[in-house]
Amino acid sequence: MFYHIKELQYQAKPERPDPLFAKQLQEVLGGQFGEISVALQYLFQGWSVRGNGKYKDLLMDTGTEELAHIEMLATMIARLLEGAPVGDLEVAAKDPIIGAILGGMNPQHAIVSGLGALPADSVGNRWTADYIIASGNLLADFRANLNAESQGRLQAVRLYEATTDRGVKDMLAWLIARDTMHQNQWIAAIKELEEKENVVVPSTFPRELEKREVSHVLFNFSRGEESATGRWASGPSMDGEGDFQYVQKPLPLAKKPVLKPAPPYIHDTLPSVIKGDMLPPNIC
Amino acid sequence: MFYHIKELQYQAKPERPDPLFAKQLQEVLGGQFGEISVALQYLFQGWSVRGNGKYKDLLMDTGTEELAHIEMLATMIARLLEGAPVGDLEVAAKDPIIGAILGGMNPQHAIVSGLGALPADSVGNRWTADYIIASGNLLADFRANLNAESQGRLQAVRLYEATTDRGVKDMLAWLIARDTMHQNQWIAAIKELEEKENVVVPSTFPRELEKREVSHVLFNFSRGEESATGRWASGPSMDGEGDFQYVQKPLPLAKKPVLKPAPPYIHDTLPSVIKGDMLPPNIC
Amino acid sequence: MFYHIKELQYQAKPERPDPLFAKQLQEVLGGQFGEISVALQYLFQGWSVRGNGKYKDLLMDTGTEELAHIEMLATMIARLLEGAPVGDLEVAAKDPIIGAILGGMNPQHAIVSGLGALPADSVGNRWTADYIIASGNLLADFRANLNAESQGRLQAVRLYEATTDRGVKDMLAWLIARDTMHQNQWIAAIKELEEKENVVVPSTFPRELEKREVSHVLFNFSRGEESATGRWASGPSMDGEGDFQYVQKPLPLAKKPVLKPAPPYIHDTLPSVIKGDMLPPNIC
Amino acid sequence: MFYHIKELQYQAKPERPDPLFAKQLQEVLGGQFGEISVALQYLFQGWSVRGNGKYKDLLMDTGTEELAHIEMLATMIARLLEGAPVGDLEVAAKDPIIGAILGGMNPQHAIVSGLGALPADSVGNRWTADYIIASGNLLADFRANLNAESQGRLQAVRLYEATTDRGVKDMLAWLIARDTMHQNQWIAAIKELEEKENVVVPSTFPRELEKREVSHVLFNFSRGEESATGRWASGPSMDGEGDFQYVQKPLPLAKKPVLKPAPPYIHDTLPSVIKGDMLPPNIC
Amino acid sequence: MFYHIKELQYQAKPERPDPLFAKQLQEVLGGQFGEISVALQYLFQGWSVRGNGKYKDLLMDTGTEELAHIEMLATMIARLLEGAPVGDLEVAAKDPIIGAILGGMNPQHAIVSGLGALPADSVGNRWTADYIIASGNLLADFRANLNAESQGRLQAVRLYEATTDRGVKDMLAWLIARDTMHQNQWIAAIKELEEKENVVVPSTFPRELEKREVSHVLFNFSRGEESATGRWASGPSMDGEGDFQYVQKPLPLAKKPVLKPAPPYIHDTLPSVIKGDMLPPNIC
Amino acid sequence: MFYHIKELQYQAKPERPDPLFAKQLQEVLGGQFGEISVALQYLFQGWSVRGNGKYKDLLMDTGTEELAHIEMLATMIARLLEGAPVGDLEVAAKDPIIGAILGGMNPQHAIVSGLGALPADSVGNRWTADYIIASGNLLADFRANLNAESQGRLQAVRLYEATTDRGVKDMLAWLIARDTMHQNQWIAAIKELEEKENVVVPSTFPRELEKREVSHVLFNFSRGEESATGRWASGPSMDGEGDFQYVQKPLPLAKKPVLKPAPPYIHDTLPSVIKGDMLPPNIC
Repeated sequence: MFYHIKELQYQAKPERPDPLFAKQLQEVLGGQFGEISVALQYLFQGWSVRGNGKYKDLLMDTGTEELAHIEMLATMIARLLEGAPVGDLEVAAKDPIIGAILGGMNPQHAIVSGLGALPADSVGNRWTADYIIASGNLLADFRANLNAESQGRLQAVRLYEATTDRGVKDMLAWLIARDTMHQNQWIAAIKELEEKENVVVPSTFPRELEKREVSHVLFNFSRGEESATGRWASGPSMDGEGDFQYVQKPLPLAKKPVLKPAPPYIHDTLPSVIKGDMLPPNIC
Repeated sequence: MFYHIKELQYQAKPERPDPLFAKQLQEVLGGQFGEISVALQYLFQGWSVRGNGKYKDLLMDTGTEELAHIEMLATMIARLLEGAPVGDLEVAAKDPIIGAILGGMNPQHAIVSGLGALPADSVGNRWTADYIIASGNLLADFRANLNAESQGRLQAVRLYEATTDRGVKDMLAWLIARDTMHQNQWIAAIKELEEKENVVVPSTFPRELEKREVSHVLFNFSRGEESATGRWASGPSMDGEGDFQYVQKPLPLAKKPVLKPAPPYIHDTLPSVIKGDMLPPNIC
Repeated sequence: MFYHIKELQYQAKPERPDPLFAKQLQEVLGGQFGEISVALQYLFQGWSVRGNGKYKDLLMDTGTEELAHIEMLATMIARLLEGAPVGDLEVAAKDPIIGAILGGMNPQHAIVSGLGALPADSVGNRWTADYIIASGNLLADFRANLNAESQGRLQAVRLYEATTDRGVKDMLAWLIARDTMHQNQWIAAIKELEEKENVVVPSTFPRELEKREVSHVLFNFSRGEESATGRWASGPSMDGEGDFQYVQKPLPLAKKPVLKPAPPYIHDTLPSVIKGDMLPPNIC
Repeated sequence: MFYHIKELQYQAKPERPDPLFAKQLQEVLGGQFGEISVALQYLFQGWSVRGNGKYKDLLMDTGTEELAHIEMLATMIARLLEGAPVGDLEVAAKDPIIGAILGGMNPQHAIVSGLGALPADSVGNRWTADYIIASGNLLADFRANLNAESQGRLQAVRLYEATTDRGVKDMLAWLIARDTMHQNQWIAAIKELEEKENVVVPSTFPRELEKREVSHVLFNFSRGEESATGRWASGPSMDGEGDFQYVQKPLPLAKKPVLKPAPPYIHDTLPSVIKGDMLPPNIC
Repeated sequence: MFYHIKELQYQAKPERPDPLFAKQLQEVLGGQFGEISVALQYLFQGWSVRGNGKYKDLLMDTGTEELAHIEMLATMIARLLEGAPVGDLEVAAKDPIIGAILGGMNPQHAIVSGLGALPADSVGNRWTADYIIASGNLLADFRANLNAESQGRLQAVRLYEATTDRGVKDMLAWLIARDTMHQNQWIAAIKELEEKENVVVPSTFPRELEKREVSHVLFNFSRGEESATGRWASGPSMDGEGDFQYVQKPLPLAKKPVLKPAPPYIHDTLPSVIKGDMLPPNIC
Repeated sequence: MFYHIKELQYQAKPERPDPLFAKQLQEVLGGQFGEISVALQYLFQGWSVRGNGKYKDLLMDTGTEELAHIEMLATMIARLLEGAPVGDLEVAAKDPIIGAILGGMNPQHAIVSGLGALPADSVGNRWTADYIIASGNLLADFRANLNAESQGRLQAVRLYEATTDRGVKDMLAWLIARDTMHQNQWIAAIKELEEKENVVVPSTFPRELEKREVSHVLFNFSRGEESATGRWASGPSMDGEGDFQYVQKPLPLAKKPVLKPAPPYIHDTLPSVIKGDMLPPNIC
């Protein structure tokens, strides 16, 4: 169960409105690695942890914090949109600044949300749960989380570079620091689980059931052998279960597949027609 | 540029058709972590690497191999669908086996694809590029890749448990082994980059620009202090830049935001109406 | 900013696992009118309210409660999935109960989420922010909210009818009661705003600017005059601005449009080709 | 069955082309509350009404009219795009007007639709049936319709404010008037149904089956008591079934949930690993 | 502008309810090639035709008819759902028929639409305008239409094979005949346009501007020369502009691309890190 | 199985960066008819062909080539983005060129992909498998392919018109030529299949089972008889099975449908309420 207080976790106040930056900032609110994604990803993972304890609590702590970040960004975007102009763009274009604003802002910020934040990314794609990950396997999911915080901090840094507004920079500097922590915490949790289990997820599948002869092999499918010089191509494998091998010219291990004709009630192209699709003997 | 040979990388032949398992197997072909996702993710990352060398080559090697896995799964699914029945489900239900097949198979396997594989997951959602990640930052992206291979191997293992068909198990055992390698290789590449850069992505953002006072702090937003016992709550941080701290009762650092009214041409609720939304003085 | 406590707002404990009902119950978690929708809809509306006061607070109160409902449903679904079987469906079909479970459950509950809830509806469509509404105009949005609670309660009632599990029914009976309150509260808020403004949204657009001659007219576009007998076809209009009229044979008010040819660089079909698309004079 | 005549219901002729406004106008054609949404929403509701009579006829009358509105908007957009430039944007930017047009117009209007309207919104999201609602319960659905017409009129008004083209304004003034009627008619229909049934949807669920102790309670989940001053917090409830109550400090009614471990074939994190996730006794 | 009459274009009455077939039949209502797709595709094409005459009229005739087909299918599906059971699936599974119905039907038919048709396909994906095509070039679009009618008739035929209900078969036999006509009419229109223009779309692009040396060449990118035996590999090309050629071993025509480093403010991996990604000299 | 070489099939080198054109060019990479669509469409069709021979080989040849086109476009877009500015848009707007670039480019090219290509179209919609078609029926699918190459070439030509960069034009001229070939080859294959089967897909459905009385009839559903003058309205039908007929005033062939009430557990509006929805006798 959740409680809300109206104070923000950290201030979200731009020096001045900037509808163009409002559009860009949507990326870290409603994009693939925006705050909606991390909030719901951590909460769904937390709700699915089977057992209570530090991992579940960590997920719930962090997921709940991310809700506060959605709030901060929604507030910042609403303020960046304050007083955003609407108007005839061709007319406005005579004033390059107004023209740039009208031409460059997200039209839905005026037409749809009435100068509020949208649950969408910087090009207007609505947020979708396609973005989130919760598998029930904590090591797998903490890797997803580390990725999300890496992509998220990268995007926040790029946005930091794209504005001169000190209020916006101030808030981003705070969110970037939180992403620093979140990367640190998932790394710590991953390290612990990797030590308890194995680096390969899931660690519970008996290794003798997989085709071990290809468990540590790099196949050179892209001509050129630059990849042969990497750590992944020789030496002991990271899972301690073998040695990396490099196969310069990978060959297929199976024959051309031949599929049987479909039954007549499927009305695929008839075998008798496909037969015309046979090779003349002298070409085979 | 690509060349194709018709031989499969590894065999994809079930003992017998099984339209129900065909539906489930779609998950690792066209789902969030299916082979389409990893193939296109690695290729898009590879095409964006600015510089040529071992990282780019590794991405192209692996992306190209994943195309062969799409092919294997498409072939396996087509074979699992061979001779799939269509018919009146209520009638068929009198024979529990036929009833279960008709009731449980993906109807699009008959109606739409004519007993071929679909670019979709196990519940029929079409594949979408929402699933893939390519940021231009290799450490971030290799973490995305490690996650993808972790989730992918986990799903393949779950499917392995769900069938008794030796042909299907044989192919899955091979794909699981490849996922073992791919986890190993991304771990190796990540380790190398983390040593060259820093564990925090992007490593190029000057640390003094972020709010360092919260860069290593765990806020206890979910009541209960289980998370305080984790490695992430005390001791040196993983990035070597400070010490983890734990804040038991996190407080807001900013005031309640007040948004200014929208301009009249937006036609949000009028301030005069909202004013009725003011608190009576004795409650403020 | 939010705080979380691990206790549930209300209990979410089924009498026994039921993976089939778990699939259906996803509708009110991750469907168009599920708890994710109402939670994010109310929060986004609340964050956009320009002014602080009772309307904003009501939105934040209710949005925060809905987060607790997501949690209850995620917990219930995880419990309904406890011990869910995986296995060979054709084999299983010999036992009609096991066959029905394997054939009817959402395969992603096993393969993707590891027996956890999914952010998806009852047929597996991932939740999307397409479902939510926040326009900045409170009367418009409260109508959206009343609709959401109406659809949501209807779906919860239908699910209540579809189970015999007393634990599930108990939780649904609680959620249904909350939907009762939420319908009541939005009706109250709507009534208040309608009295302050006008029933037509937005009330701030000067009526003389619209084509008032059709502001209260019902056009009979579907042959048959049943609709003429409704309150909406005669008598004073609901907005007090005129009288309803009924037009039995609506006629077009404009001519056939003729579009000018596209410029050559667009490469639409050439006018000279379209010209062959002219009528012979005797038919015009 | 439908008949089409080529005359427009109302004229759709701009004074001059304006590719930038064409992009914005897409919102009310193919957006969440555009004409495609209302047309298909009313028609699907109408086709599902079980019984014939005035409600069904009203739905079919209005749905059929909305088809004419799609047509008007598609025509207007095609005309606004007449002669739209294509060209080198960097070159064009030297002329601010041309630059603004090329930079601000929807590139798909040139590349994809050849200067025709798109079934998409103002940022290019393709229309989706996620937007529409048809539940079989008329009171629920008429509330959805009232919301749709409220949001739709609001958007049309915002667009009216954003143009100086008298032709566009003329058409919008007509559509705004129709939205006025449609809000009026759904209000009339809702009022009638509310009088026959109850304001709470569905009215057919026996009230004694819901947890009546929370059917009229406002929980104060967002700190601050502004919401306590609203009509929804005290006095008789709108459904006539009780009195509103306000709970200042809502408490959870259930314990922390504990989920049982997943079966081994799911390969979630093992209980023995999670066990490491237990609290040390002195913290519990 | 459109008029509606309540009589159906053709009868849509099953012998008996069949909720399982209702689910499958959704494919040709709301799937990729269902009636919503063709209706909106033809209407959008028609509204964009620049000029009036037989092509525009044909599009409007056919698009308007397809609206009647949506109506027929919506009616049929509602009737197939009449009296559909809801209930406890595990209990029901004891009766194989009821179990098959509950397990196999689309749960949204009960929970969401209240036994009405959904704007969705046979696996529950909501209809999306991603499915439709309108380019402004008639020859291109008529090819899209011919494809749509080919796929649509194929799906209708597959559904015809899947039922024994004479009422359903009767309606499908009628829709299949209409698809026969629609294929015929688009073929006729295509033939006419191909004679006026050229078979290659768009015919207006000056051929000398394209790289004519590869305008009629088949590159053998998939090893094996079966494709060399086709009409497309030798003889005069279909556009009368050259002769087909077959290239057995296609070679790249360009060098390996090298991308320049990103500017620092993008925070991609640094060139100095990538430099570690260089090949040792002896391997280059 | 696939092999990759790093050389491009054809050069992809612009004269100079142009982030605005990069955005537009995304259409033919990741749009509905972009190279991802044709690559995956042909490969999925090829993998599903039941039988080996020239048709399958042709599909695999062409699908594999399209992978090389994705690569060319990804490379071109990365180069067009080289050195793309980020920065304060309002400030930048003072320099119209920089302002146009910042305002007009896709913000995700900086924030998300780090100056790499996106798997998305020109307005930022992520690629989706909704775009692709593979039915198992070759004639149907080759028609889909001909359409895809027609739309694709049309879009490439429109982009060719929109740039003055000789490097971009050079690459587009090459891709346009390949589209010329691909249209030619699918026409050739279609012609061959139409001669072996019949022009109506699927040719295997017994014609006597369809309602032959409407198999060659054009219904005039859009008032005006322009369409009566087309080849499709008279003369022998294209399938050689009859003569086209034109019906000037199409009439319904069935009565108004009446749907039975829903069972009470569905909680649709009650029949007794709908009964109020009956017509008074004097109006029926």
